[in-house]
Amino acid sequence: MYVREMVVTHPNLERGVNSALIHCIEQCYSCAQACTACADACLGEEMVQDLVHCIRLNLDCADLCYATGRIASRRSGDDDAAIAIALKACAKACALCADACEQHGDRMEHCRVCAAQCDACEDACKEALGSLRPAVASIRAH
Amino acid sequence: MYVREMVVTHPNLERGVNSALIHCIEQCYSCAQACTACADACLGEEMVQDLVHCIRLNLDCADLCYATGRIASRRSGDDDAAIAIALKACAKACALCADACEQHGDRMEHCRVCAAQCDACEDACKEALGSLRPAVASIRAH
Amino acid sequence: MYVREMVVTHPNLERGVNSALIHCIEQCYSCAQACTACADACLGEEMVQDLVHCIRLNLDCADLCYATGRIASRRSGDDDAAIAIALKACAKACALCADACEQHGDRMEHCRVCAAQCDACEDACKEALGSLRPAVASIRAH
Amino acid sequence: MYVREMVVTHPNLERGVNSALIHCIEQCYSCAQACTACADACLGEEMVQDLVHCIRLNLDCADLCYATGRIASRRSGDDDAAIAIALKACAKACALCADACEQHGDRMEHCRVCAAQCDACEDACKEALGSLRPAVASIRAH
Repeated sequence: MYVREMVVTHPNLERGVNSALIHCIEQCYSCAQACTACADACLGEEMVQDLVHCIRLNLDCADLCYATGRIASRRSGDDDAAIAIALKACAKACALCADACEQHGDRMEHCRVCAAQCDACEDACKEALGSLRPAVASIRAH
Repeated sequence: MYVREMVVTHPNLERGVNSALIHCIEQCYSCAQACTACADACLGEEMVQDLVHCIRLNLDCADLCYATGRIASRRSGDDDAAIAIALKACAKACALCADACEQHGDRMEHCRVCAAQCDACEDACKEALGSLRPAVASIRAH
Repeated sequence: MYVREMVVTHPNLERGVNSALIHCIEQCYSCAQACTACADACLGEEMVQDLVHCIRLNLDCADLCYATGRIASRRSGDDDAAIAIALKACAKACALCADACEQHGDRMEHCRVCAAQCDACEDACKEALGSLRPAVASIRAH
Repeated sequence: MYVREMVVTHPNLERGVNSALIHCIEQCYSCAQACTACADACLGEEMVQDLVHCIRLNLDCADLCYATGRIASRRSGDDDAAIAIALKACAKACALCADACEQHGDRMEHCRVCAAQCDACEDACKEALGSLRPAVASIRAH
């Protein structure tokens, strides 16, 4: 992915390059893909009926990861509020999905990989949230 | 839209049809479209340079509305947590976008329509959030 | 949905309001929702293992309907090429999904509704494709 | 991204691991991000009014790349038709976007990077299209 290349050439970089945000964008897109793929792998399992809860959370998580990856890819420069809202929601969705996938990660490798990816994305969202300027840090508290 | 038709034929309706959630799903998809269209209409204005902030929030709002419309379209029956997370984020994004659009709604009809749509979607998300079962109501408090 | 309201207030309407395109945008968003909901309803059925093929096409169709609804919501005025590409792909995805849903529409009402919605969206895409200016009509032939 | 890790653990791999498809999925997600970021960087340029056409194609391309990345992430095993439809549309959208970005790639680094990414994604889509089984190859001819 060319996240860093795109960020460093962005004309509105008054506050400099935010490496935590770059890493988070990469994780959001990666997690969106892993969750989409895990939902499909679960669908292909013989025991699919036992995996419905996991599939739904995979799909939910993919949706929020993608929305967050896009929103974080927009550097409005003068407003981090939307990014903070998305990062917070995404971290929570990743935690839910990781939890569901971990429950059968020992039997299904795709769920094990997906749970690890969700954990990494949750961490990256929280780190990026902490990197935003103080003005929006208050959003984290709500 | 066939939101109600799809909901009433869903096999997991242990808790009955939730009209507030149905209305919210309709609003999320409608708002996702209006924001996408408003961003493009703003792009076409001669004064586009003054509308960049609005365009970015339009695009952000469209992304969260769509994710929320999808997540709310999944009735997991046994788990409202992901829906609550999305509804809360969506309501906030709608408020930000409505605010930005209202600032030039007197000069641009598309921003006036979009602001009204965002207001309606924010209200629908809050109403739907209130309709979820008590077990997840605590998420609203965080 | 406020598709028409947004279109009529768009600053780049050199070629006038295209009612076929407006109807198509509405159908694309509506079909994206119906397919997302149908996939979830299928997931909730006891016989989910027999519905995996249908669920995958539901998810595929939702993705292309949404992309097409967004692309068609952008009136570039000077370029219909991207819209034509999306409309053509969307019509085909709707046909595939309608076909899969119809196969068990007699037993599952959500699949019956979804198949009808896919048929309507396919028709709307074809009609919109026919409404684009001759310059891009050649894309239809490829 | 964990595309390969997810593919190799998928339960429906009757036809083996398709490396061209794996590479294509990575390119689709990467291109979706680059186009989203390029649209935002263009929005931040002083000469934004001259970049409207490019921004619209960036947004269009991001939508089709994402839809295609998702659809290609679903291995239906018994049906490549939807994947072929998406790959074909995506390759065309990438070509349009690369063309628009290249026109000012000498003055704007983000457009230069984005054009290169679109070229790579177009190639990957065509390669993946060629890797699908003969049964759907006919779709390529239409």
